[in-house]
Amino acid sequence: MIDECASTVLESAILLCDIGNTSLHFFDGKHTCRMSVEHFDTTVPQAKVYYINVNPELEAKLQERSNWINIKPYVETAKYYESMGIDRMMVCEAVDHGIIIDAGSAITVDIMDHKTYCGGFIYPGVSAMQQSYANISSRLNDSFNFELDLDKMPKNTKDSISYGFLRPLYTEVMRHNKPVIITGGDAARLHRLFKSARVDELLVFKGMKQMIPRIASC
Amino acid sequence: MIDECASTVLESAILLCDIGNTSLHFFDGKHTCRMSVEHFDTTVPQAKVYYINVNPELEAKLQERSNWINIKPYVETAKYYESMGIDRMMVCEAVDHGIIIDAGSAITVDIMDHKTYCGGFIYPGVSAMQQSYANISSRLNDSFNFELDLDKMPKNTKDSISYGFLRPLYTEVMRHNKPVIITGGDAARLHRLFKSARVDELLVFKGMKQMIPRIASC
Repeated sequence: MIDECASTVLESAILLCDIGNTSLHFFDGKHTCRMSVEHFDTTVPQAKVYYINVNPELEAKLQERSNWINIKPYVETAKYYESMGIDRMMVCEAVDHGIIIDAGSAITVDIMDHKTYCGGFIYPGVSAMQQSYANISSRLNDSFNFELDLDKMPKNTKDSISYGFLRPLYTEVMRHNKPVIITGGDAARLHRLFKSARVDELLVFKGMKQMIPRIASC
Repeated sequence: MIDECASTVLESAILLCDIGNTSLHFFDGKHTCRMSVEHFDTTVPQAKVYYINVNPELEAKLQERSNWINIKPYVETAKYYESMGIDRMMVCEAVDHGIIIDAGSAITVDIMDHKTYCGGFIYPGVSAMQQSYANISSRLNDSFNFELDLDKMPKNTKDSISYGFLRPLYTEVMRHNKPVIITGGDAARLHRLFKSARVDELLVFKGMKQMIPRIASC
């Protein structure tokens, strides 16, 4: 998907952009598209771009562009905690009440209780966890079985690591007895296990969008 | 502790030995000691050594020594599953009823119900998990806080990864509502969280010891 950004998206009047270490993820209100940080020319979008960013190198370039507006200074960060990732704050902004799983390179789990942030935790993402097992032993170098029956204790190696990765996370998330919302690149895979969860791929953009009136009024 | 094997241990009449990829762990019925695989001379122990082994290279050498007796062929492996590690089988042999956590390079969790094996799962060990977070982001490159209050949702990065590693494991283990027994190199650290658990550093040797009458009668 990287570098297959539809020109129509980049030509929109207003854009939202979630910038990670390796890619930029745009949203024009209807469609999303991704570009790699490496190939991206910051002068291309003429529109106002409201963005969040965790890439310090790119940040310097964006500061030079007057149409790029960093959302972070407008976030009430006191609601969260100092070193919390801005992407986590944004998905929380989009949810009033529930437990939010953002399944990317890390799986972040955050709890919102009637608009109050209650804390959260960080679990390794799918590929980090797979690599972790592979590093322990070549016998554990296997992909995960997302079709696993979580109610059955495993009796083979593939299911033992799949259960080890997925069931503790599942048990802990469900313990909080709140609506579950899943977002991020691995949302669809996790949804196979969290069957009652709602998947929302646009959660981070929804949180960002809520910030715009606050920025406009400053 | 590696290579600090007391000569009194190696001079015992009967020895038990648990061989991993990098070290041999001996038990003479009273004391334990460790030696590195690299520096070990298989001709040193004159005693009968009942052993389990996951190191294929060393296995060839041990097969040449008539006083080294591999326990594995005497284990009723049908109780377990084909590819299950022999060390996991041995800790299970030592427990009639309970949930066993063996915290080494991997954390294996196995359930015994009135002498019947019910299955188990594999979770990454302390250093594998720490490395896993470090690989995701330098911001997550931190040691775990084992003094963490597991009943409080974290609001800082160190506790977010500590909780992410420890609480899902804790929640899943406790869900089974069985006596918890912890063994392995990180048993003491995990015991700080699993306060009601029993720690038994000799579990693998207790399982192995139970096998000896079976071998003698063959």
